[in-house]
Amino acid sequence: MDNRISRRSIPVKRLPSGAVASVDVFEVEGPEPGPRAHVQSGIHGAETQGVPVALGLLRELAGRPLRGSMTLVPMANPAGIDRKAGAYTFGRFCPVTGANWNRGYVDLGALDPDGAALDEFVERHGDSPAEEVRRAFKEGLVDRLDRFGRGRAARGLALPEDLALALPLQRLAARADVVLDLHTGPVSARYLYAFEGREEEARLLGFPHVIVIPRAFAGAMDEASFVPWSDLEEAFGRRGRRLDLGFSSFTLELGSEERADSREAGDDAARILGYLAHRGMLDFEAPPPPPRPRSCRLEDFRSYFAPAAGVAEYLKGPGDAFAKGDALAVVHRPRMVGSLEHVEDSAFRVEAPEDGVVISRFPSSGVGTGTELFRVMTNVEG
Amino acid sequence: MDNRISRRSIPVKRLPSGAVASVDVFEVEGPEPGPRAHVQSGIHGAETQGVPVALGLLRELAGRPLRGSMTLVPMANPAGIDRKAGAYTFGRFCPVTGANWNRGYVDLGALDPDGAALDEFVERHGDSPAEEVRRAFKEGLVDRLDRFGRGRAARGLALPEDLALALPLQRLAARADVVLDLHTGPVSARYLYAFEGREEEARLLGFPHVIVIPRAFAGAMDEASFVPWSDLEEAFGRRGRRLDLGFSSFTLELGSEERADSREAGDDAARILGYLAHRGMLDFEAPPPPPRPRSCRLEDFRSYFAPAAGVAEYLKGPGDAFAKGDALAVVHRPRMVGSLEHVEDSAFRVEAPEDGVVISRFPSSGVGTGTELFRVMTNVEG
Amino acid sequence: MDNRISRRSIPVKRLPSGAVASVDVFEVEGPEPGPRAHVQSGIHGAETQGVPVALGLLRELAGRPLRGSMTLVPMANPAGIDRKAGAYTFGRFCPVTGANWNRGYVDLGALDPDGAALDEFVERHGDSPAEEVRRAFKEGLVDRLDRFGRGRAARGLALPEDLALALPLQRLAARADVVLDLHTGPVSARYLYAFEGREEEARLLGFPHVIVIPRAFAGAMDEASFVPWSDLEEAFGRRGRRLDLGFSSFTLELGSEERADSREAGDDAARILGYLAHRGMLDFEAPPPPPRPRSCRLEDFRSYFAPAAGVAEYLKGPGDAFAKGDALAVVHRPRMVGSLEHVEDSAFRVEAPEDGVVISRFPSSGVGTGTELFRVMTNVEG
Amino acid sequence: MDNRISRRSIPVKRLPSGAVASVDVFEVEGPEPGPRAHVQSGIHGAETQGVPVALGLLRELAGRPLRGSMTLVPMANPAGIDRKAGAYTFGRFCPVTGANWNRGYVDLGALDPDGAALDEFVERHGDSPAEEVRRAFKEGLVDRLDRFGRGRAARGLALPEDLALALPLQRLAARADVVLDLHTGPVSARYLYAFEGREEEARLLGFPHVIVIPRAFAGAMDEASFVPWSDLEEAFGRRGRRLDLGFSSFTLELGSEERADSREAGDDAARILGYLAHRGMLDFEAPPPPPRPRSCRLEDFRSYFAPAAGVAEYLKGPGDAFAKGDALAVVHRPRMVGSLEHVEDSAFRVEAPEDGVVISRFPSSGVGTGTELFRVMTNVEG
Repeated sequence: MDNRISRRSIPVKRLPSGAVASVDVFEVEGPEPGPRAHVQSGIHGAETQGVPVALGLLRELAGRPLRGSMTLVPMANPAGIDRKAGAYTFGRFCPVTGANWNRGYVDLGALDPDGAALDEFVERHGDSPAEEVRRAFKEGLVDRLDRFGRGRAARGLALPEDLALALPLQRLAARADVVLDLHTGPVSARYLYAFEGREEEARLLGFPHVIVIPRAFAGAMDEASFVPWSDLEEAFGRRGRRLDLGFSSFTLELGSEERADSREAGDDAARILGYLAHRGMLDFEAPPPPPRPRSCRLEDFRSYFAPAAGVAEYLKGPGDAFAKGDALAVVHRPRMVGSLEHVEDSAFRVEAPEDGVVISRFPSSGVGTGTELFRVMTNVEG
Repeated sequence: MDNRISRRSIPVKRLPSGAVASVDVFEVEGPEPGPRAHVQSGIHGAETQGVPVALGLLRELAGRPLRGSMTLVPMANPAGIDRKAGAYTFGRFCPVTGANWNRGYVDLGALDPDGAALDEFVERHGDSPAEEVRRAFKEGLVDRLDRFGRGRAARGLALPEDLALALPLQRLAARADVVLDLHTGPVSARYLYAFEGREEEARLLGFPHVIVIPRAFAGAMDEASFVPWSDLEEAFGRRGRRLDLGFSSFTLELGSEERADSREAGDDAARILGYLAHRGMLDFEAPPPPPRPRSCRLEDFRSYFAPAAGVAEYLKGPGDAFAKGDALAVVHRPRMVGSLEHVEDSAFRVEAPEDGVVISRFPSSGVGTGTELFRVMTNVEG
Repeated sequence: MDNRISRRSIPVKRLPSGAVASVDVFEVEGPEPGPRAHVQSGIHGAETQGVPVALGLLRELAGRPLRGSMTLVPMANPAGIDRKAGAYTFGRFCPVTGANWNRGYVDLGALDPDGAALDEFVERHGDSPAEEVRRAFKEGLVDRLDRFGRGRAARGLALPEDLALALPLQRLAARADVVLDLHTGPVSARYLYAFEGREEEARLLGFPHVIVIPRAFAGAMDEASFVPWSDLEEAFGRRGRRLDLGFSSFTLELGSEERADSREAGDDAARILGYLAHRGMLDFEAPPPPPRPRSCRLEDFRSYFAPAAGVAEYLKGPGDAFAKGDALAVVHRPRMVGSLEHVEDSAFRVEAPEDGVVISRFPSSGVGTGTELFRVMTNVEG
Repeated sequence: MDNRISRRSIPVKRLPSGAVASVDVFEVEGPEPGPRAHVQSGIHGAETQGVPVALGLLRELAGRPLRGSMTLVPMANPAGIDRKAGAYTFGRFCPVTGANWNRGYVDLGALDPDGAALDEFVERHGDSPAEEVRRAFKEGLVDRLDRFGRGRAARGLALPEDLALALPLQRLAARADVVLDLHTGPVSARYLYAFEGREEEARLLGFPHVIVIPRAFAGAMDEASFVPWSDLEEAFGRRGRRLDLGFSSFTLELGSEERADSREAGDDAARILGYLAHRGMLDFEAPPPPPRPRSCRLEDFRSYFAPAAGVAEYLKGPGDAFAKGDALAVVHRPRMVGSLEHVEDSAFRVEAPEDGVVISRFPSSGVGTGTELFRVMTNVEG
């Protein structure tokens, strides 16, 4: 039996002209029960590689019955991809407020600051089977989001633009057991963010670089989705019940922004399907197990800011390992040329302050002091 | 005897061309000892009314000996005022990262998470006279900022752009007893932010609207300056010593952005000098005591977001009181015209959901759903 | 008998998200024959006052039968009004190419460089009645535009974005006898652009300031519409037939951008209806005849660029007359303060180099050298 | 004997903060007389590859005595490279006016509309030796520019920003016999623009693609420099004197924007030195003669605009030849997915309408209809 697919369009903003920005949601319902996955892409407008990946997933699902269901949002931020500044997509933050489009999700824990609601839930479901706990908890999450939205709208006149986008996406994620948020870096390697304790599971996704992040809310989709489940398991634990509710959430960084590559997208889609197969959601011959990825902790995922201003020539790129003292970039500075004897002085050598691996670099050659030149892994394992 | 004035220039960024963005700091040293004030303006580039105010202060100080000293920064964000997008100044946040220029100050409390350093300080200065406590505490603040900056720079290669601007400003504020941060709203009334418990003191500044904010850090200059002193007084209090160290910090919103008015600036400068006279820093005949201002708490300072998209016509403006149900704006929506009979339907009436006072409104007529149309005081006192 | 009204939507761009930017066109067909008017507004996105004016026209037409017909485009540039940079609408030019949205119309004369087609038309219609000449000429204009569009599309793959917007608008104008293009200035007086020889006719529109422009093509809607008719009349004249074909085209500047005012819009709409009544298109009691407007030639409509950089305080505003040597603005320059004695030196006085009248001024207070501070009329008549 | 080098800084704009944007000019004076070259780079801010090329030229000149002299401007547009929108440099046009920074040079011919001044010059120098003609003509060009600038400034208050940048650059070029303007495309091949009749000379520069342009002014540096000399030679020709004054001007496109590559820059510098050696300005062993480049006329250098909107995947890149019907790009369009059966329909194939060679492509993956996807050579020779 085949999957049933449907599509709906969620309006998230009406523009001054009267045009409506909508988020298209594909819903895939498998013939057999099972977990629910939510996959979205492109909350930052220029991060487009997730689009062919999402379309690739849809294509693969044509012939593969799901055990469970999936919501798929290929373009999570229509207004973000529709905005240009110069030739490039200005889609990382709101041009009016500066708010990062991936930092506006609701902190559901903060709505229950003393944990009373959570305690009450755990009390009520002390002996419920896991499946029932999951169902009830998801229902509660959706309910809390709906009440939050209605409350905010009632106090003002309407929701602010960023929340009007974040809430419907978070509502989709609140009904899922697996949440995958597809991003890219600027000029970047493939890497993913995994929560502490989920390093092994992350390896199933086959990404070469892994950043291990704490279980804490800082506004992003992965955190907004994961933390409530993590808190729930802890609350059960405090009552002596060890429950693994099977919720997972990863942010996948699919290389560089401002590009789309169908061949790579096929590999990305296969990695995702392989992971979902491990989760029991379908039969799929996963790609060969990847070698142990390089990983580091979030506090070791560092930014190197430019110590000199000018035209940057990047000497190390995504995935390149470097040693302390290596030249990572050269900054060409015509103003520093004093005379023919001193042309060489105009080139500032940016040296690595420690060993590490370049994950991404700034996509522009014009750099001022304090520009984030590189993001690097340090204290790397693997 | 006269004040001594000096000027120095702090480079905060070198640009790709080699040009240097610098912050000019005027230092005014009075002939007699006394408190130290720090006044800065324009951390958001388009908020220019503080420039003539700062120049007006300088002018007045020519003939008035200070008891104490003052640092004065007329343009706190050179790169912010130098950037245009269209005809308007794009100076609220970094165009690369979206980081709000007034949210990047250092949380000094977070550098001492368990309060051990604070406790140790209080222990050491348990019986020191207030003056000595102030001196030592300021020294400690400056030292912590310097160590923080060096530490951050050491781990990366240099400071990020926003911190390279925030740190030298915060360093100036760390040596002060009074910090005044001059801003404006978009199209806005004059209002100020005062910390809880400082409402009476705020009245000395003579602003018609006051927002009362909690003593908590959220990244802004007023908070970054005030909270360490507030924490210090509390720590002394826990040891049974009630100390009033006299530190004050206010954010003053001088009307609308993108304008400068010398006459109004004269009044603003007089209000500030009147306040400083109350603080004993100079002799100045303060303007007549203002009537009791309208005030409300931060949680009652609300944003009304647009429920309709189109061309907004603002019916209520800065300082206007309104009652529940009043029309605040009309949104003209050509697309909603169905026929000659329905032209009227195209006008959406934005109605107040409660009583209140308009503090500011959006400066553009083109609005989408979710645009912040108004900031209003509700549950107004006074 | 009543007017018939219909609305259609012309898609002018599909955005990356799949959303479609459309231009809504209202067509008003009167019960009696007569001229055809085309009124459009907002080709520059931030120039919104035309929206309530266009809606006001629609409203008035509900009860007034037209002799002739009218196309009405309240928002001529949907993508232009939908784009923000900071809080302001970035709608003057394409953010990718810099192309001014009102400079992309087709130069129909250039498609017939040696005038052979025009000569042939005049020959064929040497004795045709004026009405037949008009009909045939309009048909020819539309046909040329259609062929131009198809030709351009065929050589590339599709039309460039600016032409995909300009062509359908120009096609509407090509069928009209009267074209009114509604704009605004930045912070601006009401003024209009009239072609040489049309000064008297322009007075019927009742605007207080008139710029007289040559009959030449520079890309704008008024020129693109007018020049072919002017050329046609000249060609007839060369054959000895003096034909007044009654074509008119004006650009109306409705005050300042980023605002909408219904009361003023009512006056603007009445002025336009009064003009159309003079053209015989309807019965309308025109507002009282305006006093003789101030006017000057285009070469006397000058820009004054900033000779100093800093925070501008504008001393003269829209409509203000000034004499040579008057202070038009002061530029506050904190960096020029050398000491307490020299605070005054920091204010640069921008003096008028001649007598004139301010028509508009820059809308931002942050100015660099070379910023267009003022547009002024000089050698003013009236 | 060695070259003498000096550097000077030409201020071209003061910014609101008081900072000054300056153009650094290196002047290299050889020990022997000879022609004068002017090389500039980066009038469009993001086009940075010329910076290491210019520095490379300086470095090479340390050891190679010039016969003649050279002005070298590594960063011709400081404000252009200093402006970001998102992470990318927004340096193609003025953010306030939309004016392309390479379209603001003065049309010196238009200052002498009836050619009277030119005729008078030719008359006066009817028998002067070529060297004297060159000297006098350059002097006249500089003089005309100076008078133009003073005249413009006198009528307004100061020069507009774009002219304040263009004039000092054009003044440098007016004293030169060879003008090389270094640019880049977006994602681009190396190519150059050569005037009609200069195709053979262009080959000396060793670029693989050549666009042949008419001898006409459209605002760019190459045209602004070349046309007066071309007009002069023609004017002599009309008097029966065939003079080759040896003036040359090329626009060199050094690959893609937003990058710098020292190795490639070394090759670029060698090509330029090889050309200057051919012009007799120095001894330099030119790189091996390049194969015959591909060339086409300007009207065959076409833009292909996007016929579909979505996420573009570019299948042909800089330098790729294609045949009519070839897929140049695929546009992924999630909104066009109707169901699992129609996922494929979402991919729009952009097909070549003719044979050609891709010169450059749009640098972003987010494309709307009408976006300039490709610039291609058609009717290619070579």
